[in-house]
Amino acid sequence: MTQDGGEDDATVPVFFLSDSTGISAETMGNALLIQFPDLHFERTLIPFISTVEQAREVVAQLDAAMDGPVPPLVFTTAAVDEVREELLKTKAPIIDFFGIHMARVEEQLGARGLREARRLHGVGDVRRYNDRMAAIEFAIEHDDGLSPRGLDRADVVLLAPSRCGKTPTAMYLALQHGLFVANYPLVDEDLETTDLPRPVRDLADRCFGLTTTVARLSRVRQERRPDSRYASEDQCRFELRRAIAMYDRHHLPTVDTSAASVEEIAAVVIQTLARQRRRPGARPQSGRDPRRGRTPR
Amino acid sequence: MTQDGGEDDATVPVFFLSDSTGISAETMGNALLIQFPDLHFERTLIPFISTVEQAREVVAQLDAAMDGPVPPLVFTTAAVDEVREELLKTKAPIIDFFGIHMARVEEQLGARGLREARRLHGVGDVRRYNDRMAAIEFAIEHDDGLSPRGLDRADVVLLAPSRCGKTPTAMYLALQHGLFVANYPLVDEDLETTDLPRPVRDLADRCFGLTTTVARLSRVRQERRPDSRYASEDQCRFELRRAIAMYDRHHLPTVDTSAASVEEIAAVVIQTLARQRRRPGARPQSGRDPRRGRTPR
Repeated sequence: MTQDGGEDDATVPVFFLSDSTGISAETMGNALLIQFPDLHFERTLIPFISTVEQAREVVAQLDAAMDGPVPPLVFTTAAVDEVREELLKTKAPIIDFFGIHMARVEEQLGARGLREARRLHGVGDVRRYNDRMAAIEFAIEHDDGLSPRGLDRADVVLLAPSRCGKTPTAMYLALQHGLFVANYPLVDEDLETTDLPRPVRDLADRCFGLTTTVARLSRVRQERRPDSRYASEDQCRFELRRAIAMYDRHHLPTVDTSAASVEEIAAVVIQTLARQRRRPGARPQSGRDPRRGRTPR
Repeated sequence: MTQDGGEDDATVPVFFLSDSTGISAETMGNALLIQFPDLHFERTLIPFISTVEQAREVVAQLDAAMDGPVPPLVFTTAAVDEVREELLKTKAPIIDFFGIHMARVEEQLGARGLREARRLHGVGDVRRYNDRMAAIEFAIEHDDGLSPRGLDRADVVLLAPSRCGKTPTAMYLALQHGLFVANYPLVDEDLETTDLPRPVRDLADRCFGLTTTVARLSRVRQERRPDSRYASEDQCRFELRRAIAMYDRHHLPTVDTSAASVEEIAAVVIQTLARQRRRPGARPQSGRDPRRGRTPR
């Protein structure tokens, strides 16, 4: 019944309901569930519930789940009153993220919310869409040290040995924050000295060094190229030690990616950039706001 | 004071507080704020509040904001009891997403949550990390019809004229859902017939057609290449009409990207894939679960 639990473990059915994509319901619901690492959850997302009829079908599904061995947990962010009220008729216990907070926000703002199924990350702004696209294209063009062309337009340059998480971090920062991110792989040749590699030598003020643990890097590489020198602990230890020496010498901000997600790594990069820019003598702004991506208008 | 409002508009300061990245606080807070399209918000994210001392500094900042012309709105997802309790001492009205729901979830599960600052999207699983990386690398390699090599390994092929949103959607699906996504740009030559372009001809069962409106496509292209034929409404109308004829002929699922975000487009793609796979005679699974990416264990 559970993937990695013992036979006695009961799986808790979890439902995320939404009249939109369900991203808020999942994000907030999972932020709560992750506090229970010993329990097993079976998650079902039901997005785009837009009519009372659809809501009724969902209620039937939830009520059926109530007859299972473990009662379900249900999270909803439905914003449309009729849909939400229909959903709340279920026999299952239901946590309504929208209703309870909306009333409070309305009270504080002294205004009534639309209570419509709305898009959290609208892309109505054509200029912002184009900026974001340019950022993604820049990240693709400058993935894995591919092109030195226009590298000086980078807001962020990620340095690290292979498989420390450069590429997903670069893509996430481009996609979610609209930053121009290049990434550059440190290979043995680069690691012979603690000088910055030539293509990024003049960009130290926007370089970030990624690190990880020897054990994790070796396991990640082992999955990719089993029993290779590339995956050996010795080689991983050498590369990480030399990389860290390089970061230290140039006082680069570093992020340990061994237990972090791309979201977390990105959050650290963004915070560091914000701090650096507040410093006297910081390099001139690119005109881009690094936090722009997270906050839809 | 506001970017696009009149002089009478008051900007509401909004704070998102977290002992982790703040992604949950932002996501849930913005899902509420978006219900007030006529108000102007100035958002501040304060992540990684991990000690009582840091919480005290934040409280001082919030209390100072209370002396401004408009009282702030504050959202927190801090999970650590001491930090949360300290934050709740602010004079500002504060919406505690964690506390109120955690008590309810604990009651329903009959278990006490850890109440620790925890990572929502942990990457502890090396195999999953590698799968995700492979998906991102596949998306980069197969961006904009770049390479026909290994195209048959695609879970999803996005077809559309230039600037309909293929690349960000492909990257998001790879990054968040671990899907192998290729994207193929429909150019005039492809649009002369309603046949599928040769490289994707045998992949109709996993093709998605993206559409948009003539007005939006023209505006997006106008930003990129002002006053070009490429950006003209006539050209955009032609390309979209021909593309839709192609989608129709092959019964491709389509997504209108004109008012949708990458998150929404991705959600539609994922839902369609799940429906298709439930159909009798569906093509064999790739072994990848398209929803895997959203639900950390």
